[in-house]
Amino acid sequence: MIRSEDQLLKRIIPGLPNGDEVMIGPGDDCAVIDVKSKTGEFMLMTVDQVIEKAHYLPERTSPGQVARKLLNRNVSDIAAMGGRPAQALVSIATDRDDPIWFEQFFSALSELAKKWGISVCGGDLSGNPSGTVCTLSLTGWVEADRLCLRSGAKPENIIYGTGEFGDSFATEHHLTFTPRLEEGRFLSRKYAASMMDVSDGLLLDLSRMMTMSGCSAIINPESVPCRGEADFEHALTDGEDYELLFTVLPENENSLLEKWPFRDVRLTRLGVVVEGNAGIVFDEQAHNLLEKHKIGFDHFRKS
Amino acid sequence: MIRSEDQLLKRIIPGLPNGDEVMIGPGDDCAVIDVKSKTGEFMLMTVDQVIEKAHYLPERTSPGQVARKLLNRNVSDIAAMGGRPAQALVSIATDRDDPIWFEQFFSALSELAKKWGISVCGGDLSGNPSGTVCTLSLTGWVEADRLCLRSGAKPENIIYGTGEFGDSFATEHHLTFTPRLEEGRFLSRKYAASMMDVSDGLLLDLSRMMTMSGCSAIINPESVPCRGEADFEHALTDGEDYELLFTVLPENENSLLEKWPFRDVRLTRLGVVVEGNAGIVFDEQAHNLLEKHKIGFDHFRKS
Repeated sequence: MIRSEDQLLKRIIPGLPNGDEVMIGPGDDCAVIDVKSKTGEFMLMTVDQVIEKAHYLPERTSPGQVARKLLNRNVSDIAAMGGRPAQALVSIATDRDDPIWFEQFFSALSELAKKWGISVCGGDLSGNPSGTVCTLSLTGWVEADRLCLRSGAKPENIIYGTGEFGDSFATEHHLTFTPRLEEGRFLSRKYAASMMDVSDGLLLDLSRMMTMSGCSAIINPESVPCRGEADFEHALTDGEDYELLFTVLPENENSLLEKWPFRDVRLTRLGVVVEGNAGIVFDEQAHNLLEKHKIGFDHFRKS
Repeated sequence: MIRSEDQLLKRIIPGLPNGDEVMIGPGDDCAVIDVKSKTGEFMLMTVDQVIEKAHYLPERTSPGQVARKLLNRNVSDIAAMGGRPAQALVSIATDRDDPIWFEQFFSALSELAKKWGISVCGGDLSGNPSGTVCTLSLTGWVEADRLCLRSGAKPENIIYGTGEFGDSFATEHHLTFTPRLEEGRFLSRKYAASMMDVSDGLLLDLSRMMTMSGCSAIINPESVPCRGEADFEHALTDGEDYELLFTVLPENENSLLEKWPFRDVRLTRLGVVVEGNAGIVFDEQAHNLLEKHKIGFDHFRKS
């Protein structure tokens, strides 16, 4: 599904109209808009969905957990651009008619939005004959010199990831994770040459970053820190990690490691960016990891 | 459902966090954000959904018609604030796996977005085990002195509406309507003291405008121009009209009628704003029309 989604988007995206004000359109974690702000910052825009029976099981997931996942997925996209979040619009299509569910949902959403400094300034609530789909779109802001794109990686950059990977569903990490907003702000100040958040699996997302940067990558799969019961295979492909994947110039690597202020957040050197515009991810024995592992798993079926 | 939705929102909205930059939060057609733009304009934000089997019947509706309705519903909200649209994010939760549907959807969306000057700068496509939900969020811009709110009506204002009302489903108006964007821009220059778009039925939406303005209204139900086969009852309550409802100062009324440049778009004097902060809509015999007509119909069931 992911692969066919990528194929579909490849056909659709070039036809979408985008004016001169859109500096970065579809394809990165957020769109980047030049709104001619007096502060010299660019506006970020992103949207994400949380879908009943696809992203959560209703009998096992509280409305507060749904709200938390919905908001945090979007905050993770803003974090990946080096920005900070601003305003959210929330819409829900639903067959539920228990007001208490919505009150708990919005109570949790509001509490978390406050924590992140986000205004929830509008939305839409509509009847849906089948199931519940929650959608949140989020704006953010980023200083021009701190904007981090997927396309910024260059050969010899060192590849790093925050936290752990894999086993997100069994460990409930996909419901309980904290988006790496502060970490993203720290990295955008100086260190990240390119950055994205990992939601569809480390290997697939790294190959997307390499494709957009016109490079390839060599990683050591056994360097990948595994969450819960995940083995390396799962750590590379499971998805829903919401960790930051970024590259750093070799000359900044020591400074990064020295100055990294987040003691509870592991920082792992995964590999290095190399020449070759095919976006291939190799292991150190020059195996193509995207072919070796069955990339193209169905992100939706798993969740 | 609408009534209970209004009740639910009344409990939810006050708890939503909104920072100082949010000049108008939830409750109007769009949120209004002060983004400190060099141009002195405010940013508008809105979101709307189009839901399979609620807002359209899949066997009778082409993907292009779905896209058109989705975009135009949102443009109608921007029009109601007196603004012009800017950037859109589109998300789809779906159980479809026919790429041609998506290609046709996005082709129609792109064509129409171009017409309105809208950039489609991002989105999300996710699997949904049951049905299709399409969501679009839209930003826009409005000059500070042209911003039109629902809350701007005052006693003695004359109430006007564009176009016709009622019978939107049978006539397929809900799929084929053109949002009143140019009309909204014309009205926001000088004439509209308050404005909104009519999507939940003329009577209910007028009572919302009056509630937000702290006024009441007297209208002549027989003055309401009826679309298709609609009688006055249906014209007042059917919904999905996407017409502009606005109020104008008595001293500007003649000028409005003289200068109205849209020959194909009817302009109808519906009544007058009166004192009384209960948001009641009376007929000329002082009957409460919200009680007389069964307001509270299920917007979703009808569509």
